Amino acid sequence: MANYYDQVNLNDPYMQSDIDRKKQETAKKRKLMIIGCIRKLNTIRGFILDFLITKNLRMEDEYSGLLSENKMNEIDRFVKFHLEKKSKLVLITSGGTTVPLEENTVRFIDNFSIGTRGSASAEYFIDNSYAVIFIHRRRSLRPFERKFHNVNILEIFKKAEENEHCNFQVDQSQINFNFDQLIQTYGDLSKKNMLLNIDYITVFDYFAVLDYCCKAINLFGKNALVYLAAAVSDFYIPKSQMSKHKIQSSNGGLNLDLKPVPKLVGKLRSEWCPKAYIVTFKLETDPSLLHNKSKASLEKYQNNCVIGNILDQRKNNVVILEANGKSTEINLEKGSTKNEEIEELIIKFLVSKHSSFILNAE
Amino acid sequence: MANYYDQVNLNDPYMQSDIDRKKQETAKKRKLMIIGCIRKLNTIRGFILDFLITKNLRMEDEYSGLLSENKMNEIDRFVKFHLEKKSKLVLITSGGTTVPLEENTVRFIDNFSIGTRGSASAEYFIDNSYAVIFIHRRRSLRPFERKFHNVNILEIFKKAEENEHCNFQVDQSQINFNFDQLIQTYGDLSKKNMLLNIDYITVFDYFAVLDYCCKAINLFGKNALVYLAAAVSDFYIPKSQMSKHKIQSSNGGLNLDLKPVPKLVGKLRSEWCPKAYIVTFKLETDPSLLHNKSKASLEKYQNNCVIGNILDQRKNNVVILEANGKSTEINLEKGSTKNEEIEELIIKFLVSKHSSFILNAE
Repeated sequence: MANYYDQVNLNDPYMQSDIDRKKQETAKKRKLMIIGCIRKLNTIRGFILDFLITKNLRMEDEYSGLLSENKMNEIDRFVKFHLEKKSKLVLITSGGTTVPLEENTVRFIDNFSIGTRGSASAEYFIDNSYAVIFIHRRRSLRPFERKFHNVNILEIFKKAEENEHCNFQVDQSQINFNFDQLIQTYGDLSKKNMLLNIDYITVFDYFAVLDYCCKAINLFGKNALVYLAAAVSDFYIPKSQMSKHKIQSSNGGLNLDLKPVPKLVGKLRSEWCPKAYIVTFKLETDPSLLHNKSKASLEKYQNNCVIGNILDQRKNNVVILEANGKSTEINLEKGSTKNEEIEELIIKFLVSKHSSFILNAE
Repeated sequence: MANYYDQVNLNDPYMQSDIDRKKQETAKKRKLMIIGCIRKLNTIRGFILDFLITKNLRMEDEYSGLLSENKMNEIDRFVKFHLEKKSKLVLITSGGTTVPLEENTVRFIDNFSIGTRGSASAEYFIDNSYAVIFIHRRRSLRPFERKFHNVNILEIFKKAEENEHCNFQVDQSQINFNFDQLIQTYGDLSKKNMLLNIDYITVFDYFAVLDYCCKAINLFGKNALVYLAAAVSDFYIPKSQMSKHKIQSSNGGLNLDLKPVPKLVGKLRSEWCPKAYIVTFKLETDPSLLHNKSKASLEKYQNNCVIGNILDQRKNNVVILEANGKSTEINLEKGSTKNEEIEELIIKFLVSKHSSFILNAE
């Protein structure tokens, strides 16, 4: 540009006015460029802020204070009882967590987990003499009670006609378990105080109760097993951003901007219950990804094993990867006894591994 | 610009090169302007398309084919049975609808309705000799069965010790209803075929079953009452846009763009069951808005009455606005008999109005 001005006749009046215009244009362009830069910087600043918010978001601040004193007391009493009895104890998480979309929380994001894996597993841990703290999504399946899932309670009782001493009797044809036996089993384990049900709803409630329970069972040292079967939300709206995200109408629609949920699973080994035997789950739809993802999770979080399962085969097949690299496939043979569940085999495997883990540590 | 070129010496070689440059610059600017315009037009086109998609979105296309033949047959049989018996019939919707976020539907948006209003109302309609089609969200509360909500089934049965002829007995202290009486009541109404439970999960399932049932009960003419107590989603992701909205990662987060759910409630009067007595609900948090919103809804959809309720008073107070402009407040007196429910009073009111409606029509 400078070169061009050097060549032209600066005394030509038309040229002079041309140069003035050029200067004005250049100034205008510069101004626009600066505005453009500021805009770009603002966008970049937004991205960085967003990144930092997400990066430094302390989930602890989001969930602190959410666990009721009542629940804390229940957990404390249960832990104390089983510490004195020198029980082995398992902490199970089960069911999905919700993500509230609004402060008044009418709407939320949820997932389809109803807690089949967790509730079934709890029963087999009790069979193996473990005391169970069962952290579950409110209204998801609970151990033993799950047998009534999809059963209309009112249809299994009939007014007794043959037995004049009873008001009603159970129609066993409506259910796939022995009612009397279930009542007996449940009564027995209640007397022995083997099961503590603690519920949660949101992902915040979930972390609050998990944090508290992990720290409480740390007193069990290696005798504690943690079995994280809950389906924890991947994305959420931080509380600080919730009101402004309540309803962002655009074209009469709703736009939601969710942040990734910080992975607190690493805290178990590093802070909350470092001595426990920790089992996590990895659910995938693509079988080819499963092994590497399980391996990466083990390496990252230093847990004891990862139970990998493929969505549509999860009731018949799992692959358990241990920290030492050993991989064990567990299959439920089809056509075997009708009511057999893969959880029975998984828990048998884990109980044995946990025993070795305790022995090696002593 | 043309004027300026007229004045300059076109034979000056420097000027000539200046003019060439200017032409190039102008061409460049024009090109940029055209690109800019195309971009703007694309944006506008996007908005218009978005608007048209939302405007002309046929929810019917989204839900067609979703109702199973099994459910259709159940509905047909129930309707035929009660047509022959010349019963009065109420179609109740209850519980929340979900909005799937992904095609494989692991995550969804939900709301906190568990169907208290709908399930309680169904019982009082049956008390008033109405046959009830109860369209409800799967796993939400159902009439009579709702009594077991928040009850651990396994804790209300104890192994019988005093009565050697029965295996177990009911611990009435654990429940706030008479177990024997409930079994009796439920047995009786089952024999009379007074209740048909039909469940749904998503907002699409909901509309599919509502559409089918409304058309089926149209045969009852004025003897049919429709009671829309379900909490229908306001926003959803159209199926055509679902795969691309599956996970839109931005900064590791998730961005969701939801469209308003078309208001199909107008179809009941205009197409599906034009002769029925139609009752809808309006739930607000701001009492000052309630009357006008109820009024607007009545005028727009030509239904018979709107039951207005304020979120935190909905169990003790409702205001029923009728098409003739009459407004009736219904209050549950606090401190009255322990188990009294406002639904009993609402249904008493509606049954009386429905009777007059039938009489006036004959």
